[in-house]
Amino acid sequence: MQNLSAAQLNAQLQTLIASITDLDEESIGQIEKRLDSLTKPQGSLGRLEYLAKQLGGIQRTSNPKILKKSVLLMAGDHGVVAEGVSAFPQEVTSQMIYNILGGGAAINVLARQANAEVFCTDVGVAFPLEGDIIHKRVANGTRNMTKGPAMTRQQALQALLVGAEIADEKIRAGYNLLATGDLGIGNTTPSTAIIALLTNSTIESVVDRGTGLDDAGLSKKRHAIKKAIEINQPDPQDALDVLTKVGGLEIAAIAGSILQAAASRVPIVIDGLISAAGALIAAKLAPKSTAFMIPSHNSVEIGHCKALTDLGLEPVLNLNMRLGEGTGAALTFHLIEAALHILEEMSTFADAGVSERSI
Amino acid sequence: MQNLSAAQLNAQLQTLIASITDLDEESIGQIEKRLDSLTKPQGSLGRLEYLAKQLGGIQRTSNPKILKKSVLLMAGDHGVVAEGVSAFPQEVTSQMIYNILGGGAAINVLARQANAEVFCTDVGVAFPLEGDIIHKRVANGTRNMTKGPAMTRQQALQALLVGAEIADEKIRAGYNLLATGDLGIGNTTPSTAIIALLTNSTIESVVDRGTGLDDAGLSKKRHAIKKAIEINQPDPQDALDVLTKVGGLEIAAIAGSILQAAASRVPIVIDGLISAAGALIAAKLAPKSTAFMIPSHNSVEIGHCKALTDLGLEPVLNLNMRLGEGTGAALTFHLIEAALHILEEMSTFADAGVSERSI
Repeated sequence: MQNLSAAQLNAQLQTLIASITDLDEESIGQIEKRLDSLTKPQGSLGRLEYLAKQLGGIQRTSNPKILKKSVLLMAGDHGVVAEGVSAFPQEVTSQMIYNILGGGAAINVLARQANAEVFCTDVGVAFPLEGDIIHKRVANGTRNMTKGPAMTRQQALQALLVGAEIADEKIRAGYNLLATGDLGIGNTTPSTAIIALLTNSTIESVVDRGTGLDDAGLSKKRHAIKKAIEINQPDPQDALDVLTKVGGLEIAAIAGSILQAAASRVPIVIDGLISAAGALIAAKLAPKSTAFMIPSHNSVEIGHCKALTDLGLEPVLNLNMRLGEGTGAALTFHLIEAALHILEEMSTFADAGVSERSI
Repeated sequence: MQNLSAAQLNAQLQTLIASITDLDEESIGQIEKRLDSLTKPQGSLGRLEYLAKQLGGIQRTSNPKILKKSVLLMAGDHGVVAEGVSAFPQEVTSQMIYNILGGGAAINVLARQANAEVFCTDVGVAFPLEGDIIHKRVANGTRNMTKGPAMTRQQALQALLVGAEIADEKIRAGYNLLATGDLGIGNTTPSTAIIALLTNSTIESVVDRGTGLDDAGLSKKRHAIKKAIEINQPDPQDALDVLTKVGGLEIAAIAGSILQAAASRVPIVIDGLISAAGALIAAKLAPKSTAFMIPSHNSVEIGHCKALTDLGLEPVLNLNMRLGEGTGAALTFHLIEAALHILEEMSTFADAGVSERSI
């Protein structure tokens, strides 16, 4: 893939985008009919009912099933950390990857509870990595976006297609419920820049403290984002241009995994701020992909809410989290499975001999 | 218990209330220290971290454990249904109990998924009931509260103590995580009346459509609540008076189960509108009991939000549900267990060789 030109890579991306189609309305209608026959006031299970219908529409069946679940965790480093935009040093990205491979990170714990696998891909970490990680490095981190584009258009396309490739591989292996996840010290900075540009928001209204910046750090982060936008002049109408100039390699891969999930008709749960930035890129490239996204939590990062609103996604969890890694998404698996249990296991009014509404 | 006077029953209740003490700050401090040593930005797991600390403070240990979980579903009927305040006929309370005993209701499905038991108690259903229900009927439903008090003070106390008795029995049997649940056609009407009085809200700001009232039904419900308050003149400073005059037998039992959980140092998850009305009664009788409550979802019923705000509880799930039965609470079990998995299973910075924050 590294030998292909930007034009050739873009042709692959366009083929992927063109294969994304709408949800199946017939399956949705059948599920709605069944839900309305179950022993509960109609619609009273709210978004669990919506999730059941969404899964049916995605899988094109009135009887959707979840077979295997996984979190596709994309890792990358960011040249912009030189501007002092993170509370943690850059080597923590690599250290945390080893922690994840060892099973000791938050995402490992929550994925184990959910009976889901975590697959960690190096899309662009700055330091050498060994071990059981999926090696798909496009570059040794992005360049400092306050001095010029974070990456080349070719790199952005490569990273997008890495995400699509990983998703495709896992879907072929039987994983039919995916979640996005991210790892990358400094990555709330490019994510916030993407969200500001693609939701047409001011920097002030979307910048927040990431892993725990103090006031001085917050000011540096705000300044770095402004400078990156000023220097690179990304075109907000061109999501690929935004991704290239102020994005990140793992953010690109997240967007690519979402596009592939949609093309393969597999639901994908969107985690926090970084995943939402990836989802915005995916949505701008392929508006139909949003129907395959499942929202998870509302992070405390203020930009997250802006991104979700723009995507038309309303979070189902309210936990004041701000960790990333796919942790909010992994917690959402339980609710999606609950929706399918309801659809499959509840009695109907007729079977249970329960009277329907009288007025 | 039915032979005891109101004064004797009240003495029992006061003994129960007096045995509720504060959370253990030492255990909370120990857990906080451990959480801050784990490989994540401090505080970044938000309310999962809070839940871990709450459980430690309740169980008085730095290593809280969940052994067995159950939903204590309290059932009762309501004389006020004669005023046309529900979309469903009264016999649905009994029919739904048989549905629950048969395992086909929403709460059965969600409790099974959570590996929790459902215990259904008849605190005051209007029709005869057989089978595997816990028989603790105080009366054959409440009286029509638009014509006089819903029950006597003795009945309210009896129903409170039924709830406490069931909770006590289950806690002694090893259930150390409980959830509230309700069943009772028409019970959003007394619950809304309780919430209006105890949160000092106008009727208009808390009345909603319950299981699915149309505009005419909504108007009848509003009118019934106003009339009940006008006729009975409950004293908002006296939660027991409010419960007696405009409450319900299952609401009283929910309040009692909460008080017993707090007295026995067991966390209890508060379900939707009806459970929140019970929780308000418990909180007004014993303010310390709120520390043992765990919030679940935000129902679409507008009064629910008012009640939770008054209780200082912020919902963790945002699912637009309005079913009751303990469904929102059962979905929350997964999140509480997630909090304890995090506390137990995550690596520390030291163990994983991950650098701590640099600024």
